[in-house]
Amino acid sequence: MGSNLARNLARHGHRVAVHNRSASRTKLLIEQHGHEGDFVPAETAEELVASLQKPRQIIIMVKAGAPTDAVIDELTPLLDEGDMVIDGGNAHYADTRRREAALREKGLHFVGAGISGGEEGALNGPSIMPGGSKESYSHLGPVLESIAANVDGTPCCVHVGPDGAGHFVKMVHNGIEYADMQLIAEAYDLLLRAGGKTPAEIADVFREWNEGDLESYLIEITAEVLSHVDATSGKALVEVIADEAEQKGTGRWTVQEALELGVPVTGIAEAVFARSLSGRVDQRKAVRDAFGAAEVSKTVTDGLVDDVRQALYASKVVAYAQGFDQMRAASKEYGWDLDLGAMATIWRGGCIIRARFLDRIREAYDGSPELASLLVDDYFREAVQNAEAAWRRVVVGAVQAGVPVPGFVSALAYYDGLRSERLPAALIQGLRDFFGAHTYRRTDAEGSFHTLWSGDRSQVEA
Amino acid sequence: MGSNLARNLARHGHRVAVHNRSASRTKLLIEQHGHEGDFVPAETAEELVASLQKPRQIIIMVKAGAPTDAVIDELTPLLDEGDMVIDGGNAHYADTRRREAALREKGLHFVGAGISGGEEGALNGPSIMPGGSKESYSHLGPVLESIAANVDGTPCCVHVGPDGAGHFVKMVHNGIEYADMQLIAEAYDLLLRAGGKTPAEIADVFREWNEGDLESYLIEITAEVLSHVDATSGKALVEVIADEAEQKGTGRWTVQEALELGVPVTGIAEAVFARSLSGRVDQRKAVRDAFGAAEVSKTVTDGLVDDVRQALYASKVVAYAQGFDQMRAASKEYGWDLDLGAMATIWRGGCIIRARFLDRIREAYDGSPELASLLVDDYFREAVQNAEAAWRRVVVGAVQAGVPVPGFVSALAYYDGLRSERLPAALIQGLRDFFGAHTYRRTDAEGSFHTLWSGDRSQVEA
Repeated sequence: MGSNLARNLARHGHRVAVHNRSASRTKLLIEQHGHEGDFVPAETAEELVASLQKPRQIIIMVKAGAPTDAVIDELTPLLDEGDMVIDGGNAHYADTRRREAALREKGLHFVGAGISGGEEGALNGPSIMPGGSKESYSHLGPVLESIAANVDGTPCCVHVGPDGAGHFVKMVHNGIEYADMQLIAEAYDLLLRAGGKTPAEIADVFREWNEGDLESYLIEITAEVLSHVDATSGKALVEVIADEAEQKGTGRWTVQEALELGVPVTGIAEAVFARSLSGRVDQRKAVRDAFGAAEVSKTVTDGLVDDVRQALYASKVVAYAQGFDQMRAASKEYGWDLDLGAMATIWRGGCIIRARFLDRIREAYDGSPELASLLVDDYFREAVQNAEAAWRRVVVGAVQAGVPVPGFVSALAYYDGLRSERLPAALIQGLRDFFGAHTYRRTDAEGSFHTLWSGDRSQVEA
Repeated sequence: MGSNLARNLARHGHRVAVHNRSASRTKLLIEQHGHEGDFVPAETAEELVASLQKPRQIIIMVKAGAPTDAVIDELTPLLDEGDMVIDGGNAHYADTRRREAALREKGLHFVGAGISGGEEGALNGPSIMPGGSKESYSHLGPVLESIAANVDGTPCCVHVGPDGAGHFVKMVHNGIEYADMQLIAEAYDLLLRAGGKTPAEIADVFREWNEGDLESYLIEITAEVLSHVDATSGKALVEVIADEAEQKGTGRWTVQEALELGVPVTGIAEAVFARSLSGRVDQRKAVRDAFGAAEVSKTVTDGLVDDVRQALYASKVVAYAQGFDQMRAASKEYGWDLDLGAMATIWRGGCIIRARFLDRIREAYDGSPELASLLVDDYFREAVQNAEAAWRRVVVGAVQAGVPVPGFVSALAYYDGLRSERLPAALIQGLRDFFGAHTYRRTDAEGSFHTLWSGDRSQVEA
């Protein structure tokens, strides 16, 4: 990914000094792609630093964690006040905050830049989420914007906010990506098992969906994957891929941080856990052996395809609403002053979750930056209202058929939870007061109260 | 809680030296309860330490975090090799591991002991989960077992395992408690909103349930809370308690650690998030204003009460299965060699989740320590099979009525997920390979593979 980013920069007319721990990799880049632009190979960190104009701009693309710290430690003694170190990897935002503070002490700028779009995006235009000082962005912005994806003349890169803001936003982006993929997988599973369709037929369904509101990169490539026939077996490839999803950690981080912030991100959590569950092969086998594998009755109905489309859309709105809530909560917690409309804007192109949909989210937050939830924006409210009946039918059908749709059901429960006038949380508070004297508040009076449960059961003010 | 624990010890014939930062609190304890046993007041830490026989046993009951470290730092210079420091608070198990290692270096024993049962349990017999060296337990065990709850002649206290094992198990206990309470709250909400029953009528239902398989402390006190009439309003108290559930952190920790270990604990996660959601008052209002509050049609049916009971029971089995999976995973990760049957045994009394049910869990793991899931134990498999139809009816009814039951639905999705012969995780792996070259495994060949998606789409071995 580092070399692709370097090529992208060179192709856009930037002079790029390149350095790798293995000199052979630097040499290979120059040999293969030296003609694409102005590269300056550097064999050592000292050479790299010496070859740059001040204030220097150095992008690090190494593994997150200790390797990133090692490179920073190697570079910083060589740098001068005002120089900028940009971490383009998938760092945890807390590490980025720590590094930014440490380099600031030394008069250096540290920029944690989330970069999404994979190897191809890095080469042809990723979505870039740089966090750090405004001053550093005044230098870096034009460079990064020149290599980012571009939608309707707007680059998919903006100054996200101070210190760890960029990596936090990238983390939430990835968490939403987990939810998105889980919902797509559930839609596929329903059409396959309850709908009795073949992967090729379902590929066509996704291709059609990609013409409408669901238009997005993930829907598009789902059609590609589902229609691909495996040369060895002659079957659809998806039928011979082991059904154990793996993960690299950003989804897990998103949920852990949401728990810390107290923001319900059930869609992302269910997606992360569904991956874990799929990988528990021995346990799955033991349960199938004990209960017998689920027998799903195929119930091909004319309306199923469109019902599933609407359930997918509504669940997706919920997942994004939760992710945007999490960004807002972090923004308040860390004083980042995030512009949520701008986040939607830079996700419209270059990244994995790029989608037509994000234009609507951008409009929603641009029009009303303090929107209480994406769900209450007129456009999305109407969309969810239109989808609601189909959404419930799909969930009911899945529950009756025994097809697991944890993403669809938890999204619907979230929606029903928010809409409830009264929640049974009142009972939970009553129980907590009973066994732990944790007190409760009342709907009709200020203050905190405790009932003397093991006494005369009168109420005292706490 | 500290003074109650001291009284419990004194009542059981142990000589107890007591010390508090505020001497007045020590004095008050002696004045009010000095006649209950053999107390030795100590004004300073030095006095406390000097008054104890070697090897000393000192129980700390202070706030988790920095206050605990402060007390440890004050005590350790005063202690001698072989002395034992017991932290009876709700520490994070990682802190306990750190402290245990630090004190071990100094020749001291540090014991992280989870204690459940609230103030009343501390006085009359809690469930105690001590982690630490075997040697320390040989001294402490008889003391702790003498003050623990006791069920059928067996104390609710056992040596859990090394270092942080005790606090980890206590954390999972609390996580399960969150899930348990959420499921109870959902059952109540269904009977209230879909069933059209009053809190007093529902109290009777819970009282009846407490005679059967669901018999437990939480079911018992649910009946107590629901039947309590508020003196001020004349209404059921639960109707005037603000419906915003609070939390102190152990549920959140449980989910964060489960994510780290890759164990799906969807029941606990949904419970933690449901509490967060309930507290988002402004957002809830905004959504109700935009959509209108949910109108739930009352559908009182004869079968509803028993269906809900069965849905509650099956969902509860899932929540416990997930919690026990998490303990097993941690046991492997940290080399704790946890005896899961013993964990169920010590939870049968004294603690918040004490229940008849735990006898069955004890039998399941005692009979088969390597049980792949609680679900596959004969007793629970049969119970879940018997409940399955009712469970699905309840979820379908709730989804149609618009009553949020995140705990019930996610438990059912987990069950259906484990039972599925094939999961759509295969599609997720295909997508990950498409956009990130993350590779996939096959059902029919060893190794990792990548499809050249942007090339000729042939497959290469990775």
